[in-house]
Amino acid sequence: MHRIPRDHPRYESLRIRQLLVSGAERGLAVREGLLAHGRGEAFDYLLGERTGPEARRAARAAAAALLLAGRPVLSVNGNVASLAAPDIVRLAAAIPGAVLEVNLFHRTEGRARMIGRELRAAGRRLGARGRGLRIFADDPDARLAGLSSERARCHREGMLSADLVLVPLEDGDRAEALKRAGKTVVTVDLNPLSRTARAADITIVDNVVRALPELWRRVEGLRGAPRARLGRILGGFDNRANLARALDRIGSRLAALARAPCPPHPAPRTPFNGPRRPSR
Amino acid sequence: MHRIPRDHPRYESLRIRQLLVSGAERGLAVREGLLAHGRGEAFDYLLGERTGPEARRAARAAAAALLLAGRPVLSVNGNVASLAAPDIVRLAAAIPGAVLEVNLFHRTEGRARMIGRELRAAGRRLGARGRGLRIFADDPDARLAGLSSERARCHREGMLSADLVLVPLEDGDRAEALKRAGKTVVTVDLNPLSRTARAADITIVDNVVRALPELWRRVEGLRGAPRARLGRILGGFDNRANLARALDRIGSRLAALARAPCPPHPAPRTPFNGPRRPSR
Repeated sequence: MHRIPRDHPRYESLRIRQLLVSGAERGLAVREGLLAHGRGEAFDYLLGERTGPEARRAARAAAAALLLAGRPVLSVNGNVASLAAPDIVRLAAAIPGAVLEVNLFHRTEGRARMIGRELRAAGRRLGARGRGLRIFADDPDARLAGLSSERARCHREGMLSADLVLVPLEDGDRAEALKRAGKTVVTVDLNPLSRTARAADITIVDNVVRALPELWRRVEGLRGAPRARLGRILGGFDNRANLARALDRIGSRLAALARAPCPPHPAPRTPFNGPRRPSR
Repeated sequence: MHRIPRDHPRYESLRIRQLLVSGAERGLAVREGLLAHGRGEAFDYLLGERTGPEARRAARAAAAALLLAGRPVLSVNGNVASLAAPDIVRLAAAIPGAVLEVNLFHRTEGRARMIGRELRAAGRRLGARGRGLRIFADDPDARLAGLSSERARCHREGMLSADLVLVPLEDGDRAEALKRAGKTVVTVDLNPLSRTARAADITIVDNVVRALPELWRRVEGLRGAPRARLGRILGGFDNRANLARALDRIGSRLAALARAPCPPHPAPRTPFNGPRRPSR
């Protein structure tokens, strides 16, 4: 791993990337996870790499849904474990009755076990509340309908019996299978056009390293609120409209960049660049 | 490697991705290349995963520039070798005097040699024309000014003495160093905002697996055309305006998708989706 200079213009993005590369080196994440992260990086760039108003609104609704759920399950894959293990463990510990379950697109029991160990270590660092967390990792004992072979495997007392599943950075097939199984699906996905973003009930269009802490703050703020109030927050949230606003935000940013008289990295003047406009 | 079902909604994108994962498994591409590909996937998604009019216009200008050049060099890195080795070799064979040069961001002579072997194998499959190609891979004997240590290394009879360099999927530092060295720079880059896209004289905003065959068709169509005609094609091309149009295209597509009453993957109806509009 390289040391990234603090004043590098892409410091934060490179720091997040190194978390994932380091996770891949340790065997938590796989090659396909690196590709998926790269895709996320591009969307994050287009979103301005900050938590926008749509993400905050979705996080508030997600917090209400998590606190209303009877059996909430927080799903963890290799990228989530690499990027945000302490964040998702802290979030689980803040939600009464929540459990964690490891769920991998390219599943091997060895990798599931390793991620389970990672989560338990993060739990111990949280103290008593973290140590008491239920974490389902390897040896799944159930199957989710509509997914092929290894990917269908899950835990009876975890995802199979959940009424709500938080699946950050999820594949569209699983998000859709969870919906068909009648569960409320909450996701974190930087691509507002993805199948997962569209299939979910609540989509937080944000980087997982920002979204999980934001979600934790919302849960802390709403825990203990009357169920009627949580229900009103949920009822007032329209995922489709929220996704459309996130798309609009990306579109306007691109349009502004396209119109900008000075691009961030001006092209050198060459005979091939066509007619010049007067410089200012 | 997994077998991708032909009817998977993301078949083509997953197929391309597997070419790269397989290239990484064979040691042609590196982790950073997987991340970079993921970023490209996001922009390709926003472009509708097809070759738009801006890409076709840029490919036509690039073909003219390649045919006008005295010493054109086609640069090949790990991702290009994994995704499109036969395409870039066929393109080189179609351009009089063109040579291929391996050029790696994370350079090791072993990897450069391996990519050289890959290109020579693709050349042999092309027949006499492919077998006659000059390919510079390992043992560079020159340095390009303005790049650090290993990344500066190149070949005297390749990139150092080139008047035009095609550098698909290139890093911004190298594209800018090539410009400073007075070379005409042609690139293929899915991100119209990247430093490479901005620094190049001609930027084909397209997926390399579509752009190189398109460029080959344009070269075939223009080979033997009078130099004056090639010059007019080049002179009529404005890279900055073309990039702005590509950005506009993405922006309009996003705005249209945001307004669309039916997203490509409609979300299931749930109590959390907010008020319904009448169905049609």
